[in-house]
Amino acid sequence: MNLNKKTQYKLSELAESLDVTIKGDPDCIIEGVCTIQNGIEGRITFLMNPLYAKYLPNTSASCVILQQGDASFCATNALICRDPYYVYAKIAQYFGNAAILDQGVHSSAVVDDTAVVHPEARIGANCVIGKATKIGKNAVLGPGCIIGDGVEIGEATALHANVTIYHDVIIGQNCVIASGAIIGSDGFGIAKHKGIWHKVPQLGRVVIGDFVDIGANTCVDRGAIGDTVIENGVKLDNLIQVGHNVKIGENSASAAFSGISGSTEIGKNTLIGARVGIVGHISIADNVVLTAGTGVSNSVKEPGIYSSGMAGLMTNKEWRKNCARINRLAKLYSRVKTLEKEIAKLSEREE
Amino acid sequence: MNLNKKTQYKLSELAESLDVTIKGDPDCIIEGVCTIQNGIEGRITFLMNPLYAKYLPNTSASCVILQQGDASFCATNALICRDPYYVYAKIAQYFGNAAILDQGVHSSAVVDDTAVVHPEARIGANCVIGKATKIGKNAVLGPGCIIGDGVEIGEATALHANVTIYHDVIIGQNCVIASGAIIGSDGFGIAKHKGIWHKVPQLGRVVIGDFVDIGANTCVDRGAIGDTVIENGVKLDNLIQVGHNVKIGENSASAAFSGISGSTEIGKNTLIGARVGIVGHISIADNVVLTAGTGVSNSVKEPGIYSSGMAGLMTNKEWRKNCARINRLAKLYSRVKTLEKEIAKLSEREE
Amino acid sequence: MNLNKKTQYKLSELAESLDVTIKGDPDCIIEGVCTIQNGIEGRITFLMNPLYAKYLPNTSASCVILQQGDASFCATNALICRDPYYVYAKIAQYFGNAAILDQGVHSSAVVDDTAVVHPEARIGANCVIGKATKIGKNAVLGPGCIIGDGVEIGEATALHANVTIYHDVIIGQNCVIASGAIIGSDGFGIAKHKGIWHKVPQLGRVVIGDFVDIGANTCVDRGAIGDTVIENGVKLDNLIQVGHNVKIGENSASAAFSGISGSTEIGKNTLIGARVGIVGHISIADNVVLTAGTGVSNSVKEPGIYSSGMAGLMTNKEWRKNCARINRLAKLYSRVKTLEKEIAKLSEREE
Repeated sequence: MNLNKKTQYKLSELAESLDVTIKGDPDCIIEGVCTIQNGIEGRITFLMNPLYAKYLPNTSASCVILQQGDASFCATNALICRDPYYVYAKIAQYFGNAAILDQGVHSSAVVDDTAVVHPEARIGANCVIGKATKIGKNAVLGPGCIIGDGVEIGEATALHANVTIYHDVIIGQNCVIASGAIIGSDGFGIAKHKGIWHKVPQLGRVVIGDFVDIGANTCVDRGAIGDTVIENGVKLDNLIQVGHNVKIGENSASAAFSGISGSTEIGKNTLIGARVGIVGHISIADNVVLTAGTGVSNSVKEPGIYSSGMAGLMTNKEWRKNCARINRLAKLYSRVKTLEKEIAKLSEREE
Repeated sequence: MNLNKKTQYKLSELAESLDVTIKGDPDCIIEGVCTIQNGIEGRITFLMNPLYAKYLPNTSASCVILQQGDASFCATNALICRDPYYVYAKIAQYFGNAAILDQGVHSSAVVDDTAVVHPEARIGANCVIGKATKIGKNAVLGPGCIIGDGVEIGEATALHANVTIYHDVIIGQNCVIASGAIIGSDGFGIAKHKGIWHKVPQLGRVVIGDFVDIGANTCVDRGAIGDTVIENGVKLDNLIQVGHNVKIGENSASAAFSGISGSTEIGKNTLIGARVGIVGHISIADNVVLTAGTGVSNSVKEPGIYSSGMAGLMTNKEWRKNCARINRLAKLYSRVKTLEKEIAKLSEREE
Repeated sequence: MNLNKKTQYKLSELAESLDVTIKGDPDCIIEGVCTIQNGIEGRITFLMNPLYAKYLPNTSASCVILQQGDASFCATNALICRDPYYVYAKIAQYFGNAAILDQGVHSSAVVDDTAVVHPEARIGANCVIGKATKIGKNAVLGPGCIIGDGVEIGEATALHANVTIYHDVIIGQNCVIASGAIIGSDGFGIAKHKGIWHKVPQLGRVVIGDFVDIGANTCVDRGAIGDTVIENGVKLDNLIQVGHNVKIGENSASAAFSGISGSTEIGKNTLIGARVGIVGHISIADNVVLTAGTGVSNSVKEPGIYSSGMAGLMTNKEWRKNCARINRLAKLYSRVKTLEKEIAKLSEREE
């Protein structure tokens, strides 16, 4: 695919503008990436995780991106740097294969007359763009995206196919939003009256900063009153739920299936593991790490690594027994209390 | 946005037809909503949660919806009523900002000749409507909705953009279905034969009552034989899974990520917290509350609040230790048993 | 619906080519399916779960698919076989009601000139098909499917409405992919550099075998380097997350909400319960069963049934107490240790 794209580069071209030192042949031709354990001639790889260091001396890759300390074990060309994974990320961009849409608006797209689409934006087939919506320079909307009224999508932001953006959502620059993501859906506000639930209108917006990534089928609800806010540099994986009026601080990241309930504020630089659940109306401090599967029901005020929940894996048979043991803890406590009394009695008599 | 909509109302207009008493100036002009803590002149707010009562005397909002008991602490106009959150929900509708589609069928929509779309329905761009499907009066289909054959969508029901409705799904009146929701997908029925899984056809329907809300990217599977049923007034949040042949009773509500497995029946007025998992083929009584994260593996026959699962949040270090303690419970039990025997022996000797 | 389809069959027609014995009238007319407990004349049902055996003698169904051992309790016609649920699955196909698209490409679909669509494929309204993509014979794309560049979709594979397939995804024959599924989205690869997260390009593919089913709103990420692989006969339920470079072995099945993190390898014939979470970079042996809600943080090397996590359901009050007990386990252990020392001391004195 992507046949018009040059796919061969000299090592020196790839290294340009990166803070790296080339060891070996700067004219070596690189035409793709590979893993270090399955190295392929003509391709570039990286070494970051020490578990993979054993593959370094014998990899068939034509270049390894690595740290100074590993360079002497490398028998092929190397790019020496401080952050090999980051340098790999930059170089891998040369070999991307994603669709490149034509500039302009596809003839099948339905764009409201009052929408303002930058002439250097790319709007895919069957997109729908609402009233007074603005699409920035070099923004890309994959096919089938539906963008509501009054939306702003910043420069160089990319929406993959089939993304849905509700009205009045603001998205910054250089964001990537994956297919199936829903931004600006109503928060879950319901009010009971005479035994019946009534939907509470959700009148706020979603405001997303720059360099934010949002994964496939992730949902970000609009604010009830006021906005749901996702700050610059936040990275969200697939199938995440962000409730109304949540705020996620700069540069925080979350793995799949996490859920953040309404009005909760997440600090900067937090790391949220997969399937973490956070109740509403609390706050999580900066630099907090929540490990996978953790449930958070109170504010976390200090940086640190926090966990809750399940113990380790067991055979189902042992697990059933352990569940029974857990459920009998009340009895165990009272047995220990009884023992303590009896011991006290016996010891008294002794003296 | 929404520029054609009147956005200024007298307090008396907003109060009309609601069971409220106006305290203060009925001619006060209201042009939006705000929170009580961030009150804004010209806007209306509400007080429900006692935690926010401290903001009442000094809020800058021009009107607060509140209960009689709070009225004397309110320095501005007030709407006195029994259910402030419900009254707020009704009044907030005046300030909604969602897209208003034009009446009729958008020229880009693909509607089968045998479909019956009410002339006062609104069908958005790029919708697809199948054979013999009926769309009721004032129903709204946002752009990109795909509606299968033989579907019925009742009066005033709204589907947001990019909703998918499979064939033979029946949806009542005044429902709201959010983007990305999938209604009528096949249930997960597989039969093993000679070591290979075979898909079991799912021949039932989904039947949804009136005033049902379904959240973004929520999935409701069709019945295998017979129907999956969601009764009147049920409210489902985002990213929920409803299995085949599930029945959810009137006026029940569920937060995000809950999953209800096949053939389970949920009673009326139940509350299902986020990430609750319920196994198949059981029943949950009316008025049951299941707290967030709970796993339910047996029928619940009595109303009440039920829970299971994870204990509270700890530092990761303490949690690891506690997991180890839990995994060593078998040994603890036997240590206590040994102690009991020894004590018994000692006590015997004493006597 | 589906009015052109014959919906009446003789029992002998339905039994043709299946390994069954007809007991009773082979000319009995069958026009649909029913459950055994709600049997309907003219319809066929099956008996598999012994819990339902009590309904067999009195069911109103006109035929029951059952095992030899149950045949004598059946008062109506029967199809005797070894795998009643499998035979039911085969027969139920005659009564399917799903949309049958017209052969060929719908006029509203946008198909790139370089795509190759088999003339006997069926492409629904508003589909978008990318460059150099190949759609096989008898493949069906429901309305609104978006297929990227360089994709291959095999013979007789069906995509329901609104499926999104990214570029360079390979899908085999006879697969079924439900609405809202996203195949080939970017894996969650991010690299930190000077305190900022950077997206790592995801350059691999997704390669899916034959007879694979993928549920509604399930996400399968493309590989980072190399491919994400789903082997023949794998069955995935709704709302599942499959991370980059995961491999799922032949004939494994997973219930909803399970999540498999990056680079993990799942063996053949595994069964993954609902809401199971599996960390990255581990492997799960063939024939492993993971029960619902289990978290797996280390490789599982032996076949067997494994579990972790929550204990059984309790009233919320009892659960709160039990959580407190669990959180006080450290103290309980030290109390028992103290008791042991005291007992030892007392016993010593005795001797």
